[in-house]
Amino acid sequence: MREITGINNELVKETVKLQQKKYRDKKFLLEGEKCVEEAFQAGIEILYAFVLKEKCEKFSYLGEKIICASEQVLKKVSTTDSVPEVVAVALKKNYGIEDIKNSKKLVLLENIKDLGNLGTILRTSKAFKSDGIILYGGECADLYNPKCVRSAVGNLWKIPVVYINDFFVLKENFSNYERVATLPRAQEGLKGFRINPPVIVMFGSEAEGLSDELVEFSTRQVKIEMDSEVESLNLSVSCAVVLYKLFL
Amino acid sequence: MREITGINNELVKETVKLQQKKYRDKKFLLEGEKCVEEAFQAGIEILYAFVLKEKCEKFSYLGEKIICASEQVLKKVSTTDSVPEVVAVALKKNYGIEDIKNSKKLVLLENIKDLGNLGTILRTSKAFKSDGIILYGGECADLYNPKCVRSAVGNLWKIPVVYINDFFVLKENFSNYERVATLPRAQEGLKGFRINPPVIVMFGSEAEGLSDELVEFSTRQVKIEMDSEVESLNLSVSCAVVLYKLFL
Repeated sequence: MREITGINNELVKETVKLQQKKYRDKKFLLEGEKCVEEAFQAGIEILYAFVLKEKCEKFSYLGEKIICASEQVLKKVSTTDSVPEVVAVALKKNYGIEDIKNSKKLVLLENIKDLGNLGTILRTSKAFKSDGIILYGGECADLYNPKCVRSAVGNLWKIPVVYINDFFVLKENFSNYERVATLPRAQEGLKGFRINPPVIVMFGSEAEGLSDELVEFSTRQVKIEMDSEVESLNLSVSCAVVLYKLFL
Repeated sequence: MREITGINNELVKETVKLQQKKYRDKKFLLEGEKCVEEAFQAGIEILYAFVLKEKCEKFSYLGEKIICASEQVLKKVSTTDSVPEVVAVALKKNYGIEDIKNSKKLVLLENIKDLGNLGTILRTSKAFKSDGIILYGGECADLYNPKCVRSAVGNLWKIPVVYINDFFVLKENFSNYERVATLPRAQEGLKGFRINPPVIVMFGSEAEGLSDELVEFSTRQVKIEMDSEVESLNLSVSCAVVLYKLFL
C-alpha cells in the first residue's frame, strides 16, 4: 500500500489544485467517509484516495486506490474545517443535452451562485422525481465545488445536470416543452396550478430573479402564495415547494 | 455625533462579546444595512450602531444612536467575511408561552442545531402563516446568533419564538392540540393529509430525527413522499413542503 506523509509530495500538490475551479476540468474532490462511499456505490470512478493511516482498514473496498496519509496531508488536501478521514479524487461525470432531451420533468436554474442552495436543490429535485437539471447562464456555480458536493449528500450523480449558456440552444431543444416561470408577480398561484409534461420549471437566482429573456420564453407563470409581510423565500425552499406540488 | 476609531475602546470590547452566546442574555448584534433597517422598522430597540464614517448620512434615521467608526472597528465587531457598513446592538425580544398559547398553527423544532436552517425555517414559517415556533430540547441553536439573524432575513421579529426544555410544560399547555409528528416511517403521506387547527407540527433535527418522547406525544404522523433513491431531505426543505401544504 502506498504511503505519503509529507505535504510537499507532487500528488498532494496536484490534489490541492482541485480546490480551485480552473483545475477541475476532469477531476474533482470527494471529502469524508460518507461522500466517498456514496460516490463509489454510484459507480463514480475513484482515481486515488488519501486515507488517514489508522483508518485504512475501514476503506478496504477502495483496494489499490488507497494511499495511507498523515493528518498533515489530509488537512492540506481538504477544504473543510475539521479534517476528514478520507479525501479522494474522482473523475467527473459529464452530461450533455442528449441525456435530458427526452425527459418529462426538468428544472432550470438561472445563474445560481449559492453552492449550498445548489447542492440542496439537486437533492430535492431527485427526491421529487425530476429527470434532470439545466444550469443556465454563464454565472452558475460549479457543481463540483467541494461545498456543493457535500450539500448534495450523494445525489450529485443520481440526476443529470447540464450546463447551457446559449439561449438558442435552449430554444432549439425545448420549444415543445411547457415552460413554467416561477415569479413573485405571476397571476396564478401554485395551489390550483396543473400542468402536463413535458415541462421545464424555471427559477431565477435569489438576488436577481429570472431574466426577461426567460420570462418571455415561458408559456406559463406561477407564484408561491405567502404572507404579505414576507418579502421572499430562500431559493431552495421555493424549489422544494414547487417541485413537490408539480412533479410528485 | 460620537466617533470611535480605536479597537481598544470599551464599547467596542463590550460589543465584540456579543459574538458569544453567553453574553447575549439581553442584547444581540445586527450586521449590515438591510438587517438594521428591518429591525428598526419592526420596532426592535436599537441601543447604538457603529457606522462606517463615510456612510453615516445614510443611517440618519438612527439619530443619536449612531457612532461613527473606522473600518477597523467594524471589522472587529462584525462576524461576517466582508466588513459591513453598519453593526448595531439591539435589545432582544423575548417571548413566553403566553404569547403562543392561543395560536392555531405552531411549528415545533426539536434540538435544531444548524443556524442557517433555523433562520430559513423562521422565514418560511412566517411566509406560510405559522403563528409561532417552539424550540424544544436543551440543545437548540441560539436564535440570536449572528448567522441565524442573517438567514432569517428580517423575519426574526415577525413571529414569536419560544424555548421550551421541559416535556411537562409542553404537555400541560398543548394537550388540546392536534400534534403531528413528521417521520420518514409514517404510514400516511402528505399528499392526502388533512388536519384541523389548533395544530403543532413537529420536526426532529437532521441528525437524529424526533425523539421517542415526542413521537409518543403525537396524535398523527405524516411523511413526505419521495424517490426511494434519496435518503432524506434537508430540514428546511421538509419544513417548507409540510407547512405550505398544511398551514397555507
